[in-house]
Amino acid sequence: MSDVHVTSTGASVAMKGGGYYSERTRGAKDVIDKASGMLLEAVAAIPEPRDGDPVRIADFGAADGGTSKETIRNTIAAIRSRFPDRQISITYTDLPSNDYSVLFKNMLGLTDDLENNYLSEFDGVFVNACGIGFHSQLLPDASLDLGFSATAMHYVSEKPCEIENHVHMVGAKGVTLDAFTRRAADDWNNILLARAKELRPGGRLVFMNFGKDEEGRYLGNTGGVNMFDTFDLHWRAMAADGLISDQEYLNASFPQFYRTKEEFSAPLLDQAGEVHGAGLRLISARTGVVECPYRAAFLNSNGVMSSREFAVSYVPTLRSWSETVFATALDKSRPAAERARLVDQFYQRYENMVAKDPDGHAMDYVHCYIAIEKTSR
Amino acid sequence: MSDVHVTSTGASVAMKGGGYYSERTRGAKDVIDKASGMLLEAVAAIPEPRDGDPVRIADFGAADGGTSKETIRNTIAAIRSRFPDRQISITYTDLPSNDYSVLFKNMLGLTDDLENNYLSEFDGVFVNACGIGFHSQLLPDASLDLGFSATAMHYVSEKPCEIENHVHMVGAKGVTLDAFTRRAADDWNNILLARAKELRPGGRLVFMNFGKDEEGRYLGNTGGVNMFDTFDLHWRAMAADGLISDQEYLNASFPQFYRTKEEFSAPLLDQAGEVHGAGLRLISARTGVVECPYRAAFLNSNGVMSSREFAVSYVPTLRSWSETVFATALDKSRPAAERARLVDQFYQRYENMVAKDPDGHAMDYVHCYIAIEKTSR
Repeated sequence: MSDVHVTSTGASVAMKGGGYYSERTRGAKDVIDKASGMLLEAVAAIPEPRDGDPVRIADFGAADGGTSKETIRNTIAAIRSRFPDRQISITYTDLPSNDYSVLFKNMLGLTDDLENNYLSEFDGVFVNACGIGFHSQLLPDASLDLGFSATAMHYVSEKPCEIENHVHMVGAKGVTLDAFTRRAADDWNNILLARAKELRPGGRLVFMNFGKDEEGRYLGNTGGVNMFDTFDLHWRAMAADGLISDQEYLNASFPQFYRTKEEFSAPLLDQAGEVHGAGLRLISARTGVVECPYRAAFLNSNGVMSSREFAVSYVPTLRSWSETVFATALDKSRPAAERARLVDQFYQRYENMVAKDPDGHAMDYVHCYIAIEKTSR
Repeated sequence: MSDVHVTSTGASVAMKGGGYYSERTRGAKDVIDKASGMLLEAVAAIPEPRDGDPVRIADFGAADGGTSKETIRNTIAAIRSRFPDRQISITYTDLPSNDYSVLFKNMLGLTDDLENNYLSEFDGVFVNACGIGFHSQLLPDASLDLGFSATAMHYVSEKPCEIENHVHMVGAKGVTLDAFTRRAADDWNNILLARAKELRPGGRLVFMNFGKDEEGRYLGNTGGVNMFDTFDLHWRAMAADGLISDQEYLNASFPQFYRTKEEFSAPLLDQAGEVHGAGLRLISARTGVVECPYRAAFLNSNGVMSSREFAVSYVPTLRSWSETVFATALDKSRPAAERARLVDQFYQRYENMVAKDPDGHAMDYVHCYIAIEKTSR
């Protein structure tokens, strides 16, 4: 469910060429490295499991497990160092529709991604997967020592409504914004209550979620051209040009919400609330911006890359996670080939705009990094 | 990995028509019902888990979980009845290539199979999947209360060689048969040693595996026309007719072994052996034959079904699990469409043979039903 897969994709690219290409993966690796430190702190803080129990960890919204593989490997190494005789169990969770075959092949070293294959490096490490959304309790009570999640929980459990004047809640207003805000608050509450049940006393959560920072920045909106406004601009123009219907314009609404640090922290700080009552306590919360690796590669090329080359390299990474929103917004009565052509046209407009004037186009990452503890009540 | 999926397929067929169609699912349901009783005995025998631990069960080689769904639901009901306050965790295992999305959708009631949806029926039941072959240890030490497996462990971990004079080990001879026999013995030893580690003391295994019974009967060979000999006959004839090469004839070898009750029991009874030393004890072993539901439907139609209609209904069920062996035996240099045509021709020959003289054609199931306990040493 993670919607930025730069590492798993980019890693193989980097192996081919190095240098120029590795610029593109630096951003995603920076995000992950920040969480690595928090995970090591969490490993140092969790209590030793009961005699005979393994240390149980989980990656919520793991997709194919590629993006978190190095982090999970380092976490396992730290757990093994602290508790040398403990077995370790890892649960990867995602939606039912996720490709778990790729996940298991990746863990077994049956894919191209041969780095950090912890199953062959360490004895006594076991993996499994749970294909149910993380808004529900997925693991038995008090069975989890350490829960991790990267770039997954900005997805709401269900869209409360379509967004009438924009494609993303960052541009929503009035009752629509209220509806998304309520849904996101309820979802976050449910996510935390589910984790509170799963965690054993003293257990930890380390989450790095897309969010809005203190300066109002969020993914693709860090001072330059606003990425979601650009999506909206071109989708709206396709409606104005008669290429798509007004209903199809309306249907394109990302099922996402970018919470602020305060929204992430609120249920953990509200001493009268359910989440606090369930024993979860905020250890730390901070926001962080990581530079768009595609933008960085363009700037660092010192004019070797043309504007068009930048646009051609940049827009596909946006398309990889946003395409489904626009493709499914189109009327099902249109032939599939026509729908595909319209989606192509949409991203071609975006690419042309970037190629014409690349200034300010960047998909910088804005995350909220949170550490949470389950108290030993 | 189960190679007979009559229930999951047949169930939806039965819902459409009843009567005539439900004949077809009776066989597979009989096999499962026999194991249900053994599972209920196992539930009655396992010790209560430690305070706070769930009861952990596993289905090894579960495919999409459809075939065992009713049995697992009944097992959960029995566990809940015996330990009312215990949560229950179920691990479904299969190869990495298995379709886990269908498994999770099936468990969540998102498919057509709406019966026995135990996740909505019972609180405190959790599922996960492990996409690693059951010849390895898949779960932490002493974490499993009850392991189940249906029609999966006849697959060997790897073919030791091709079978030169037949397509299946039931027709193999000499050094080839010896190689398959050794591989199957090693595999069974590894399967049991892995389960011995996973089981906690007092835990149970209930396996129903394809095998050879005391009268030498096995799947599709119960007195009438031998199904595997018929596969070999037509595959060989395609070579004789110059449609496939000698190498392609040779390449078709099922990666399977049908063990006898004695072969299943041997490592459990050998008091000097590793498996016995690891604490596994044989509770019971018996063989059982369940009638081919397609054959039964034909006979019970009292002449309403023609021989051709029987052949058309019968051969696809054989094809569903055997096709991959013949398709992958063909040379990769042939265009895909040509390979598909050759496989079609092969099953057409089988169908024509059955249509010409249906006498004795039946895929009766022959299973060995085994119950095993891990001693509290």
